[in-house]
Amino acid sequence: MSEQAIIASAATTPTGDPWLFTPGPLTTSPTVKEAMLHDFGSRDARFIAMNKAVRDRLLAIVNGSESHICIPMQGSGTFVVEAMIGNFVPTDGKLLVLVNGAYGWRIVKIAEYYQRAVEVLETPEDVPSDVAALEQHLARDPGISHVAMIHCETTSGMINPIKAIADVVKKYGRSLLIDAMSAFGALPLDSREIHFDAVVASSNKCLEGVPGMGFCLARKQVMMACAGNSPSLSLDLYEQWQGLEKNGQWRFTPPTHCILALDQALREFTAEGGVAGRGARYRANCQILVEGMRAMGFQTLLPDELQAPIIVTFHKPADPAFDFMEFYRLLNARGYVIYPGKLTVADSFRMGCIGRMSEPQMRGVLQAVKEVLEEFGVSNCQP
Amino acid sequence: MSEQAIIASAATTPTGDPWLFTPGPLTTSPTVKEAMLHDFGSRDARFIAMNKAVRDRLLAIVNGSESHICIPMQGSGTFVVEAMIGNFVPTDGKLLVLVNGAYGWRIVKIAEYYQRAVEVLETPEDVPSDVAALEQHLARDPGISHVAMIHCETTSGMINPIKAIADVVKKYGRSLLIDAMSAFGALPLDSREIHFDAVVASSNKCLEGVPGMGFCLARKQVMMACAGNSPSLSLDLYEQWQGLEKNGQWRFTPPTHCILALDQALREFTAEGGVAGRGARYRANCQILVEGMRAMGFQTLLPDELQAPIIVTFHKPADPAFDFMEFYRLLNARGYVIYPGKLTVADSFRMGCIGRMSEPQMRGVLQAVKEVLEEFGVSNCQP
Repeated sequence: MSEQAIIASAATTPTGDPWLFTPGPLTTSPTVKEAMLHDFGSRDARFIAMNKAVRDRLLAIVNGSESHICIPMQGSGTFVVEAMIGNFVPTDGKLLVLVNGAYGWRIVKIAEYYQRAVEVLETPEDVPSDVAALEQHLARDPGISHVAMIHCETTSGMINPIKAIADVVKKYGRSLLIDAMSAFGALPLDSREIHFDAVVASSNKCLEGVPGMGFCLARKQVMMACAGNSPSLSLDLYEQWQGLEKNGQWRFTPPTHCILALDQALREFTAEGGVAGRGARYRANCQILVEGMRAMGFQTLLPDELQAPIIVTFHKPADPAFDFMEFYRLLNARGYVIYPGKLTVADSFRMGCIGRMSEPQMRGVLQAVKEVLEEFGVSNCQP
Repeated sequence: MSEQAIIASAATTPTGDPWLFTPGPLTTSPTVKEAMLHDFGSRDARFIAMNKAVRDRLLAIVNGSESHICIPMQGSGTFVVEAMIGNFVPTDGKLLVLVNGAYGWRIVKIAEYYQRAVEVLETPEDVPSDVAALEQHLARDPGISHVAMIHCETTSGMINPIKAIADVVKKYGRSLLIDAMSAFGALPLDSREIHFDAVVASSNKCLEGVPGMGFCLARKQVMMACAGNSPSLSLDLYEQWQGLEKNGQWRFTPPTHCILALDQALREFTAEGGVAGRGARYRANCQILVEGMRAMGFQTLLPDELQAPIIVTFHKPADPAFDFMEFYRLLNARGYVIYPGKLTVADSFRMGCIGRMSEPQMRGVLQAVKEVLEEFGVSNCQP
């Protein structure tokens, strides 16, 4: 097929864009985007009611309506991760971060910016956080006040043992802070089973809204004691909460269109059956992708039991005819956007399973991969 | 007219929403909103090119392409104001803030969060910053390293004497930081005439994009010396710049849809004739509004020579039959959203002149005000 013919026949979303096999920004439904075709005033009663509905729905996802509060925050996911660390870990606190990828290291960096005492418990990028080692740390050092973890580490696509970690942190009476950015809405997280003081996630990712805001689901009693902790005015979750309590409004200009999109995205999330339905579609996507890629000889970084149905890391084939930048470009021309690797340990690339995609798109990208490999003359995709 | 008849006949924008006579979020064009009907990957070559084009256009607005760089930042306007203070004022610096309203005080608050030495030079909310007093301060205290000012103080709608302030700050060799949030794009700001090290503004406001990001136009030589200053990872402008220089990408997930909207908004800004054309429309809006309101007896807080064509503060009529909350509600029902006052000195309300509105909307809101006053039985609007 000529390049022009390929581009002319490229798969496209209903809005004419390539499909995004990435960890986000990702493909959202046309109706989510159409929800942004309106301008709402920030003090509009409809907008205030919408914010309350969105916050209530987000709390309901973790069954946290009684115990927790929802505080939205402008910016990307990292902004609300930083807000969580800055608000929850006081100047005399000490944070232990469970690290097995870039997002764990990002929390360490935030703690360093904020000059908070921080300790790292690292495992390799393909090894889940070590619960026994965590217990030893907590037993040995009563000074550790908070533990931070990544639910699904997007660096690798690995799911961390959240229940076991939460149980140990609770046993030792410390405070658990969770970055659930890429997992929230697709992997179960029930506040009645998993004890946490704060979890943060974003409007984008598995909720399938557009990027531009995050949120923190914070244990109310703990948040109440966080007044004055935040080193940043903009990222002060406690003050953001107080503002919302006062009059239902954000302290500073809200990303109105992003909220309109999230409101619609949450309706579609509920219609799909919530976490169970969304998770099932992503698991099916992931299974089709992994099986299809393995059939072509690709190897996943992770064994299936560690793989979250969010994003999959594949080892780069050893065949020198395989050129990742060309692979990326040729898939792009066919309407499929994949993602470079972020591993430090191995040459790899990533393909996401999330966003408004299902079996036809997964089959489509596999067919495109097959065509590109044929063009390369690569028949063996072993790393 | 019955309430139902009023609502049925309400003025609406082309997308069916009320007109926003506010300082933002405000009414944007249908085409700006339609630009958000697409999902772009953050590493997409088209998206990277769009970011570069947007940054170049923003620099061109201040004629700063040679001297300055443009660094976009996720979040509301306050986020990039905080980023400016945190990046430019080092720990051993001292910030003098020219205050005559809430946004001046907000910068003081940011400096306090960041534990920077800060001094306030205050004038009343209806009095421009005092240039002679500024000069005395700078002459007396060589420790003052930075001066921060608000170009148009949205609290009152007043324009501050930016040229005179910039000249004094330059004369004494200090660094000028400008919050031009509500003025940028409508009031002239030429970096060749007004010496500043940083100016911040937002995608919303006079550029008529949607809310969700701001930007800093920073003097390149000065920004280069700001490495390591930022107390916040997310709001680290220096690192954001370095990331963009490296590969054209934002460090953390960009608000893709907001950028798509800003790209379109900047095309429409250029088509309208840039600052001259946009400013002319807003001045015409402002004049119609002020003349019409004065004809009904309303008094503006400011004399015309201090009034920016952005938002106008009106004194509340003294007649006890005038109830602001009812006034607001009844205008809302007619399709016009106004804004409460923020003055500490007087009872007032505000009406904006910015956003995708022109004479028909200004005449429309005046007619609606007239109808509501008749309903109230208020004939004298003197404060």
